[in-house]
Amino acid sequence: MVLYLIGMIGTAVFAITGVLALRRDGIDVFGALVLGIVTALGGGTVRDLILDVPVFWIGDFNYVWVAAGSALLTFFIVRPFERTQTLLLYLDGFGAALFAIAATEKVLGLGHAAPLAVMLGVWTSIGGGIARDVLAGRQTLLMSREIYATPILLGCALYIALRMFWPGVSWTSPAALLFIFGFRAVVIHRGLQMPDVLSTHRPS
Amino acid sequence: MVLYLIGMIGTAVFAITGVLALRRDGIDVFGALVLGIVTALGGGTVRDLILDVPVFWIGDFNYVWVAAGSALLTFFIVRPFERTQTLLLYLDGFGAALFAIAATEKVLGLGHAAPLAVMLGVWTSIGGGIARDVLAGRQTLLMSREIYATPILLGCALYIALRMFWPGVSWTSPAALLFIFGFRAVVIHRGLQMPDVLSTHRPS
Amino acid sequence: MVLYLIGMIGTAVFAITGVLALRRDGIDVFGALVLGIVTALGGGTVRDLILDVPVFWIGDFNYVWVAAGSALLTFFIVRPFERTQTLLLYLDGFGAALFAIAATEKVLGLGHAAPLAVMLGVWTSIGGGIARDVLAGRQTLLMSREIYATPILLGCALYIALRMFWPGVSWTSPAALLFIFGFRAVVIHRGLQMPDVLSTHRPS
Repeated sequence: MVLYLIGMIGTAVFAITGVLALRRDGIDVFGALVLGIVTALGGGTVRDLILDVPVFWIGDFNYVWVAAGSALLTFFIVRPFERTQTLLLYLDGFGAALFAIAATEKVLGLGHAAPLAVMLGVWTSIGGGIARDVLAGRQTLLMSREIYATPILLGCALYIALRMFWPGVSWTSPAALLFIFGFRAVVIHRGLQMPDVLSTHRPS
Repeated sequence: MVLYLIGMIGTAVFAITGVLALRRDGIDVFGALVLGIVTALGGGTVRDLILDVPVFWIGDFNYVWVAAGSALLTFFIVRPFERTQTLLLYLDGFGAALFAIAATEKVLGLGHAAPLAVMLGVWTSIGGGIARDVLAGRQTLLMSREIYATPILLGCALYIALRMFWPGVSWTSPAALLFIFGFRAVVIHRGLQMPDVLSTHRPS
Repeated sequence: MVLYLIGMIGTAVFAITGVLALRRDGIDVFGALVLGIVTALGGGTVRDLILDVPVFWIGDFNYVWVAAGSALLTFFIVRPFERTQTLLLYLDGFGAALFAIAATEKVLGLGHAAPLAVMLGVWTSIGGGIARDVLAGRQTLLMSREIYATPILLGCALYIALRMFWPGVSWTSPAALLFIFGFRAVVIHRGLQMPDVLSTHRPS
């Protein structure tokens, strides 16, 4: 129940940040609706297609309602969200951590091996934002220098390692969540970028 | 039989408008072939993947032949199509209406709920054009101010409402089709755009 | 066994050329990892989704390891690869030929008709590079004038024709492979472009 609620909050946060990211480019209400839903549900949809399991929001349409409602709300009453843009950056970091660990767990639960679970955990977390940026004609995070996906990748690997070495303990998910969120929070707070040795972007 | 024919006409129209949209950007015969097919079949393909039913054109390859043939014809004998560009805009509006209602009906027929049917009806209608624009590096209609998807969304909802309140009557599909096509025709004829209150584009 | 090895070499080559294509645009190590994998495995993934068969790299994760390893190696030790860029162009032509014929064979083996096999053979070969370019915000080969996909399309058709007219002979695959690779090699060596009659690009 708590997990379900947290999942819905993650969905709402992703839809809100999705619309906020596009508002300045010029968008109408239908575009905001579609791209908010894509940001929130796109990553998990591709994950489920690749795993050949039913797409998660077909079985529980509340995901769509929450994403659509959050997107429309953000479009029409944007001011409170803009005032809290820094808060939303941190919430987005929390949503990303949550989506990644929940997906890693789901893939392991289907009996797949750890590397696939890490791969699809990362994808579930970043895929929606990437799909939104492709549909909106924006640069995706894959070509950006911001440290966004690396904490997620390391956090999913950490989650697997913890499960392997301390099976059966209850703090595995919270620890991995905290790791990802903490890493992202430091990145946001300090405005960190990939070090030059890990990037071919011109040194800034 | 009539429905099948109309479906093929819709496929042809989408392939033709798909190639026409790209011709000025510079394209070769292979690109026209692929992007014509994507425009005509892309939306329905994603719909079938999400519903986990066989992709419709694998069962009936005539869809691919019609799309491929129309795309190639348009590439080589473009002049008659260019002269009738306004006619094609209206035909595209008719094709969009047809694809939307047919898909809404298909999803309901599989036993799914109304909201999913509306969502996938709209997607089937606009998804092919969006995929084409992404592959061609063009701005998608999601970031444009043209009123394209809104009549489709309202028309699919209207179709559901009619079925609910007057079940068993035979004019449900034609009425919804007519609504979408009529709305689009007015938009095309008057060059209407989203009102400022429903758009964050700079007022024009 | 030989076929398996050749498949892995093709995967490695695609991942390497995928990263090389992006290095100058500015990319970090995570982007290189993801886009290298997408280039190598993207086309076959979409093929398997459309055919509704298990995605090939879920059954054999070595494909992912080879793609990921090649992408990372290319990112960190780029110099030897840059010196051999012309060699890589030819290797890419060989990889494209291999992916196309192997996919055509796979689709026929599943009992599908020849046209679908050709269509998905071509897609498997070019889809990964197209997905990479879309995710990286680059122009895809569909809008370029380079002769890339045409030899693949003709080669897959040739493969089908050979199988039909000389069933049971053993040189069908090698002949089609050689045709595609030879055609591409001539194109690369001479810098050929689509003739004006097959292109709407401004004459160069």
